[in-house]
Amino acid sequence: MDPLSDAVKKSGADAYVVYASSRDADMRYLTHFTTSDPFVFFKKPGNPGVIIVSQMELGRASREASTAVMTRSQAGLPSILKKEKDQYQATAKMIAGQAGKKILVPPNFPIALANALSKHCTIMVDNGTVQSMRAKKSKAEILLMKDVQKVTEKAMGCAISLIRRASVKKGILSLDKKPLTAEFVKFSMHSLLLQHGCNAVDTIVSCGEDTAIPHITGSGPLKSDEPIVIDLFPVKEISGYYADMTRTVVRGEPSTEILEMYETLREAKKLGISLVKTGVSGADIHQAVVDFFKDQGFESTTRGFVHNLGHGVGLQVHELPTVGPAGKALASGNVITIEPGLYYPGIGGVRLEDIGVVTAKGFDNFTAFPEDLVI
Amino acid sequence: MDPLSDAVKKSGADAYVVYASSRDADMRYLTHFTTSDPFVFFKKPGNPGVIIVSQMELGRASREASTAVMTRSQAGLPSILKKEKDQYQATAKMIAGQAGKKILVPPNFPIALANALSKHCTIMVDNGTVQSMRAKKSKAEILLMKDVQKVTEKAMGCAISLIRRASVKKGILSLDKKPLTAEFVKFSMHSLLLQHGCNAVDTIVSCGEDTAIPHITGSGPLKSDEPIVIDLFPVKEISGYYADMTRTVVRGEPSTEILEMYETLREAKKLGISLVKTGVSGADIHQAVVDFFKDQGFESTTRGFVHNLGHGVGLQVHELPTVGPAGKALASGNVITIEPGLYYPGIGGVRLEDIGVVTAKGFDNFTAFPEDLVI
Repeated sequence: MDPLSDAVKKSGADAYVVYASSRDADMRYLTHFTTSDPFVFFKKPGNPGVIIVSQMELGRASREASTAVMTRSQAGLPSILKKEKDQYQATAKMIAGQAGKKILVPPNFPIALANALSKHCTIMVDNGTVQSMRAKKSKAEILLMKDVQKVTEKAMGCAISLIRRASVKKGILSLDKKPLTAEFVKFSMHSLLLQHGCNAVDTIVSCGEDTAIPHITGSGPLKSDEPIVIDLFPVKEISGYYADMTRTVVRGEPSTEILEMYETLREAKKLGISLVKTGVSGADIHQAVVDFFKDQGFESTTRGFVHNLGHGVGLQVHELPTVGPAGKALASGNVITIEPGLYYPGIGGVRLEDIGVVTAKGFDNFTAFPEDLVI
Repeated sequence: MDPLSDAVKKSGADAYVVYASSRDADMRYLTHFTTSDPFVFFKKPGNPGVIIVSQMELGRASREASTAVMTRSQAGLPSILKKEKDQYQATAKMIAGQAGKKILVPPNFPIALANALSKHCTIMVDNGTVQSMRAKKSKAEILLMKDVQKVTEKAMGCAISLIRRASVKKGILSLDKKPLTAEFVKFSMHSLLLQHGCNAVDTIVSCGEDTAIPHITGSGPLKSDEPIVIDLFPVKEISGYYADMTRTVVRGEPSTEILEMYETLREAKKLGISLVKTGVSGADIHQAVVDFFKDQGFESTTRGFVHNLGHGVGLQVHELPTVGPAGKALASGNVITIEPGLYYPGIGGVRLEDIGVVTAKGFDNFTAFPEDLVI
């Protein structure tokens, strides 16, 4: 039986119930149905579950969902709405009529709906069964993610070729007689992604001082002799799966500090990747990189290596497992990033990030992109 | 005082607390900070509130957020984590230390965090104060939304010009000697959107039989003499605001049924728009259109007019107010769509959708796009 059916049985519940839109990664994973409006999914042990959608969505849901499909009318909502006008109260009554007397819900289940449901049934909160299921990717999911990563590398190649082709005038990169801006580099990457059915938001193309703040997304003309950090995490619209990668480049002459930071960073990534395999804890791998940086004279406080070494990727860009202080044992099928970074205000920041899958033997790296600093 | 401060005071709570990523529209509205990971916002009456972010996000948050910013370390998380490993338990303890003994939370607050918090404080569930605030747009928000709608119309123009320029061969549209597909039309629109900093997902370019199912997104070669429904709801990345519009076109000769449906549809949209103004209920406007369709011989059951007449738009593509059977009185500043549609399996579907703002006098329509059926 699948782990979710097991969890339902173990808890003594009649069914597992989710109420969310498909922007909720658990919901997308469990139903394969996409919509921006919240809907109900319930699953009794041993079957793939049922979604409850509006009449208008019935045709599309029947084609797309991996579950059975029921309309709100079939679930009795119209007659409930005659007496009950409140959205949560009415939805609760509809759910109670279908799912049973004891229900198990995910940790992010909406409190207002839980309160309304508690008039009809006993509610138990599951502790992350679906998140754990999502963290272990199937072969099919791994193929989908390798596919997104390939497109991501094409986009990264496009960005780096723009920077390489630029000429330098008074410390500013220039292409076709115009300053080459972070915005234009992002637009060029996003256009290429779009041609491959992928979208990206919050893409980072930061330069100079900005690189010392890891999540500044960057704007304005790019400069020579300064680090340019490019961090891209696109999602393929049709599958919902993300990829994630980062490269740092300098057009011209990096400062001695940046050169030294980058050399150490490459070694740190190599070290991190060499430690990945089934059973090793994310915390231990992170700590090994912290220790390595310390040996090389770089701290991990509010400067230096300020973030986790990595994270799971899938239907969310950040998901389980954690590769950081709170990280538990990695499992085969976990798709994770390894992304050391070093950040010093006044000097700048550098980051490298690969993505791949944890195996019994090590790390099957999806990333096949060069990491030359100076271009 | 702002409505949220009022709601906190009225409830007797010390603070309002949200835990979500900025994909949650309330969170984006309250903080103007964007991140894909969940974070804490709390607000005591009379001040703009505080967000608690990781050290790594501090720099960006300080630049971007409309609130005060505190790091997790400043909020005491590191020492809490020494004793408490569970994410929700630790976050709850951190929140309780900052927000007070009685807290008010939104209806979609995660149940696991509420359960953990209830060990430290009393929890009350707010009934949609922030959603109501969001539903009434400020002048600044209206300008942002008009701006997105302008870009949306450019994209719609691009789609229709492709269809117009196509040649027809054996009932299939063809451009540059290749079949003109739904996918290519979507790609062309999305490219144009991207150039203006906008993204769209789930865009509909459906044709023929598919148009009878309102939310089929459409694929494959477009056909002559059949309805093509184009429904586009882009978001501007930098502001987070959506626009939404739909047009239906036929390249060639529509059937008599489609022609008749379309004529009635145009009248229905006109009627709907003419009824919009402050104080009129969304339910009444919807019902007036249902009645009009009935007079013209079109039902509103599982065929005919199968969905709501409209919906609010803002930081979500569907938000309050409702323009349908459950719709309450419209207020000045509500940005809504008016989008009648008629759907008949075996014949096809037609839909028209405008977006605009409710005023004391009527409807300030943001949409200035022609509605010719035959192109």
